[in-house]
Amino acid sequence: MANHFADRLASAVKQKNTPLVVGLDPVYARLPESIRVNRFMNDETDVTASVDAIFTFCARTLKIVAPLVPAVKINIGYFERYFWEGLETYYALVSEAEALGLEVIGDVKRGDIGHTAAAYAEAHLQNPEFSDMEDILVPDAITINGFAGAEGILPFADMADEQGKGVFVWVRASNRTAASIQDFADAAGVKMYEKLAQIVGEIAVQSKRIGSSGYSNIGMVIGGTSPEETTVLRQRYPQCWFLVPGFGSQGATAADCVRFCNRDGLGALINASRSILYAFSDAKYKDQFGDNWEKCIEQATIDAKIELAKAKG
Amino acid sequence: MANHFADRLASAVKQKNTPLVVGLDPVYARLPESIRVNRFMNDETDVTASVDAIFTFCARTLKIVAPLVPAVKINIGYFERYFWEGLETYYALVSEAEALGLEVIGDVKRGDIGHTAAAYAEAHLQNPEFSDMEDILVPDAITINGFAGAEGILPFADMADEQGKGVFVWVRASNRTAASIQDFADAAGVKMYEKLAQIVGEIAVQSKRIGSSGYSNIGMVIGGTSPEETTVLRQRYPQCWFLVPGFGSQGATAADCVRFCNRDGLGALINASRSILYAFSDAKYKDQFGDNWEKCIEQATIDAKIELAKAKG
Repeated sequence: MANHFADRLASAVKQKNTPLVVGLDPVYARLPESIRVNRFMNDETDVTASVDAIFTFCARTLKIVAPLVPAVKINIGYFERYFWEGLETYYALVSEAEALGLEVIGDVKRGDIGHTAAAYAEAHLQNPEFSDMEDILVPDAITINGFAGAEGILPFADMADEQGKGVFVWVRASNRTAASIQDFADAAGVKMYEKLAQIVGEIAVQSKRIGSSGYSNIGMVIGGTSPEETTVLRQRYPQCWFLVPGFGSQGATAADCVRFCNRDGLGALINASRSILYAFSDAKYKDQFGDNWEKCIEQATIDAKIELAKAKG
Repeated sequence: MANHFADRLASAVKQKNTPLVVGLDPVYARLPESIRVNRFMNDETDVTASVDAIFTFCARTLKIVAPLVPAVKINIGYFERYFWEGLETYYALVSEAEALGLEVIGDVKRGDIGHTAAAYAEAHLQNPEFSDMEDILVPDAITINGFAGAEGILPFADMADEQGKGVFVWVRASNRTAASIQDFADAAGVKMYEKLAQIVGEIAVQSKRIGSSGYSNIGMVIGGTSPEETTVLRQRYPQCWFLVPGFGSQGATAADCVRFCNRDGLGALINASRSILYAFSDAKYKDQFGDNWEKCIEQATIDAKIELAKAKG
């Protein structure tokens, strides 16, 4: 396995022939009835029962999508809601996904300065060195918040370099009000997210960060719902991987998203979470596969791949 | 106890007669020898031993500072480094601090949009409703990252309202490179952090968020090292509590920090972390109290209070 995150990603995207990434945002109340009905997992007021149900659902989902997509994104927010039990479940799923050969992105959006940033980097990008946690793995890459500028990004980038990991800096969100901050423009018309992208871009192109694939281990998170404003970033930073959320439930179309791919088909990861994860609640799949929720997720993943492939033309 | 966070904070600051907040940023290697030497706590490669040592140190520190200061800030980054064991320790210390009557700020800097922001808000501002976690408390307030604009702030603000909790939005960092993003200015010279402050300010002054003390439960984190640029925020947002990091080790002086207090002596919390927590490594205290690290922490806390009181004049 390549030691450089960007190279691992490039070969995974080529092998699976898709930029599609499946996002895990598990919510207990939305889990399949057949999982919640299990007597050990049917008590939402019991934290152990809840995380068992979530783990079972996510672990089975990982097995379904592993042959189909290069990577998964696991959103830690949905696990923190279950306190330390949730965090243990998050790391168990990260380890599970890596064992299945998937590239794993921890969507943690951590961000701070100095020593605290270094502590977060250690927590999220360095495999535990504790004798009693030897079989636990951290993700291949994480998302971070670059609000504090280069000093907030470098502790993560340096740890990623050292550990063969990657970092995606949140540059442009896919929500409406993000514009109030991120599109804030200076006298020359340069927007704040462009300035942030520039800071990330400068860190990303340092030669030690470029793998043999030509890509950097430092990428950006760029919302798929603002394609007009942001495709220019594709031209400016050809060596950065872009993680593009918003495909499916958040309203970005396949055409919006594929603009972020380079001509070589690499450079973008298009994430779909709820539209795949809860496909079994969608009449389109339910009518076809009934209570077979695993089949629904599989078909939704295949359909999303086809949709992206068609949009790329 | 007042149900409104801002009112609890106002009465705590009046009662302890200081804006000083002690920050817990525990690092194993910096703990007192007498704690690390304990045979159950002397193995840095064993996660249970490590968190036991950190818990012991922090719990004893909380007891020392509880009679002296209105609030403590617990930095979750230093606990995440110990994975779920660290998170359990973090929540145990939050509960411990609340039992001691302290206002507790969880320095978590979480930030995301939509459902994920709501999930984080639930995780960090709502006491667990699980039957097997009944004695666990979440902090009185948390720090968040407002990079996604109002939609990224409101899920936290709404949960805080509902739970009698507070939120501090990170508006201006105390590090050097933060300026590249946060001082980014538009054609009229308005800086990005001022724009963000304006968004926070609008959310904060909604009448449902103002307590009987006249203060809002929605505040801002504003670095003490940029006082010239930021004291104008004090005038603009008189009803917001400002959490001011950077006093002590990060180089902000007492005079820099007290500018953030209103004339009533309220409205600012001045945080010192390492200068108090590791006072026993400082010759000034070590010479006086020898190996009695608890006495060093107590004296450093008293000294910091005096320094702030003098600066306020």
